Amino acid sequence: MIGVDISNVWGEVSLQELLALEAEVAAAHEALPERPEEIPQTERILEAAARIREDSQVCVILGIDGWALAARGILELLQEEQQDSPRILFAGNTLSTRQWNGLKEKLEGKDFSVIVLSASGGDMETGIALRGLRWMLERKHGTDKACRRIYAVTDPEQGTLGPMAKAAGWDVFEAPSGSALTASLLPLAVAGVDIEEMMRSAREAETEFNLRSLENPVWQYVAVRNLMYRSGKAVELISAWEPDFGTFGRWWQQLFAAAEGREGKGLLPVPVELPGERLGLGQLALHGRRNLFETMVRFFSTGVKHTVGSQWNDPDRLNYLEGRTLDQVEEDSWFETVDAHAAAGVPVITVDCGEPDLRTLGRLIRFLELSCAISARVLGVVHEQASEE
Amino acid sequence: MIGVDISNVWGEVSLQELLALEAEVAAAHEALPERPEEIPQTERILEAAARIREDSQVCVILGIDGWALAARGILELLQEEQQDSPRILFAGNTLSTRQWNGLKEKLEGKDFSVIVLSASGGDMETGIALRGLRWMLERKHGTDKACRRIYAVTDPEQGTLGPMAKAAGWDVFEAPSGSALTASLLPLAVAGVDIEEMMRSAREAETEFNLRSLENPVWQYVAVRNLMYRSGKAVELISAWEPDFGTFGRWWQQLFAAAEGREGKGLLPVPVELPGERLGLGQLALHGRRNLFETMVRFFSTGVKHTVGSQWNDPDRLNYLEGRTLDQVEEDSWFETVDAHAAAGVPVITVDCGEPDLRTLGRLIRFLELSCAISARVLGVVHEQASEE
Repeated sequence: MIGVDISNVWGEVSLQELLALEAEVAAAHEALPERPEEIPQTERILEAAARIREDSQVCVILGIDGWALAARGILELLQEEQQDSPRILFAGNTLSTRQWNGLKEKLEGKDFSVIVLSASGGDMETGIALRGLRWMLERKHGTDKACRRIYAVTDPEQGTLGPMAKAAGWDVFEAPSGSALTASLLPLAVAGVDIEEMMRSAREAETEFNLRSLENPVWQYVAVRNLMYRSGKAVELISAWEPDFGTFGRWWQQLFAAAEGREGKGLLPVPVELPGERLGLGQLALHGRRNLFETMVRFFSTGVKHTVGSQWNDPDRLNYLEGRTLDQVEEDSWFETVDAHAAAGVPVITVDCGEPDLRTLGRLIRFLELSCAISARVLGVVHEQASEE
Repeated sequence: MIGVDISNVWGEVSLQELLALEAEVAAAHEALPERPEEIPQTERILEAAARIREDSQVCVILGIDGWALAARGILELLQEEQQDSPRILFAGNTLSTRQWNGLKEKLEGKDFSVIVLSASGGDMETGIALRGLRWMLERKHGTDKACRRIYAVTDPEQGTLGPMAKAAGWDVFEAPSGSALTASLLPLAVAGVDIEEMMRSAREAETEFNLRSLENPVWQYVAVRNLMYRSGKAVELISAWEPDFGTFGRWWQQLFAAAEGREGKGLLPVPVELPGERLGLGQLALHGRRNLFETMVRFFSTGVKHTVGSQWNDPDRLNYLEGRTLDQVEEDSWFETVDAHAAAGVPVITVDCGEPDLRTLGRLIRFLELSCAISARVLGVVHEQASEE
């Protein structure tokens, strides 16, 4: 379950305003085009992943858009790269010569495969990296064998990557435009993530989020962030109390920025790491301009508990924490922060997610993708002729 | 040299406005308190670093404020962690149990040392991690020897860390409040960075930036960003075309957010990775609300050139780049982006930095710290009784 709590926004938003927006959210949800049928290709993905795990020490993921960012964000949160998996490197989102040289160095003497994640295949950054890596593979293995080391995940409806991959004899996996979860499956499977379980959880979430009422957490999130926008807020600070959330937060940011930053409109989403950045952005949120609201994501801690020890003479004045576990201290700190920010007049939406495991991430991605699609319509930047992306 | 170019802001700012602000910038520069005398302690730092490199496989850097972020940002940009250096890990900026367990796992069976970077020593996140690591060291080496593996970098004028370190017999290094460069020296030296060369370059920059006129790049940056603020901009997007800039960009963000996000004032600084995020934040900057301006940092590429190859049949339509080097492609793309954003009405300040080496970073840190100190005064959030922080 994804639990959205909007009880800390009432200073800025009235229940009446929220209810008044309900019809708009309902209409936007209703107007969403059918989700493209997912092609059942899990078996093919698992086969390809098994081949990569077998024949590669390194797997390079190329891509500049949300797909590659989502795959990287999920892997960092799952801390899933296992001892017996190929090392996974991300590239193709930069023109930096240093980065290219660094990548080449890491591939020196290694057997590697390449997965290109690109809806269109039209991005120069990804294309140049792909040319370079393809050349390295062909020089090492010959053209016939090299083509078995390149995999393309793409939108069959658009762009150059699909035709190019078919002509070159690469394995092609079709991902409907916009779905970062489907597009991430091959890299995740290479890293050893149970993608079947992840998709099962995502499908359950889809049913859950199909609820047509303000009890739907998607509707709550969409309604409140649009009310914030209408009341003049410029920025949504998105925080999670989890250092590994960094890249996933950047995916969240780019998802909404790409969909909503149009026609002179849109909130600016800004990921923040708390408590790590509380002395910088945290302080600015509390004491700076009143032009932002916050979305605070909470994961529950897992694993072995750590108990705070005692220290003779209490030199750091932390003995009051003695015997408490770190996750208790964190929970208190989290609630104190929400309260302090709300008390200072900063509206706070909280999103409870449970353990940061693959089931949670499957649900959270569906939550965000659906929220984003509806929200962009409520904002009024999606026009029926335009494509969904 | 740091080269600031403000020729792409004239749509938003007039020369008259800029000249009118000159007196305010001059007064703010004049009003800065004397920089605290730097204690000559390079020799002691190098001795301590040599000891850590000798007796430790891992060096854990603890800290939550700008100091630790700066040290980490510099190391990531320098890509300096050498084969024969201890592995450097950053911690003490989170309450996450996962993170703590991950850190313990990485320290399992390893000899390690701890460097605490904290002006005050009062942060719970750092304090709890320090207690845990101290206990591990004392259990392994006994109290007498453990204390030779903990190093404190702190502001002697404030807080609990100085007295605590002295009582425990740890090596203490004094850093004047606010100077991230001085505070980073010990971790940098452990990683093998030539800190004497870096400080030399920083001192040269100080002289350069002491110029009292609008030819001073510091003054230009301070003046334009304050004019942007006064004209109603909410956000400063800070981009660099260098993927390793991520953490350094977060340091830049926290430096200004902490200094300026006060009394209901301040710009929100938001680091962006370009071209990696051009489809998200880049698009929002171009097509979203007109409430932001951009500061684009440029480093010159170094190292072995990479030439874009030809591809039979041009399946990705990139053959027009054949024979060009990646750094040329990047340069063109950079200028095109600046032009496109400026043409769309987004004011752009560019900052040319040269190679991302230790000399450049020494200068850049001085540039930003001085700019921040002056800018906060022009903004009006520094009051003479308040501390300089």
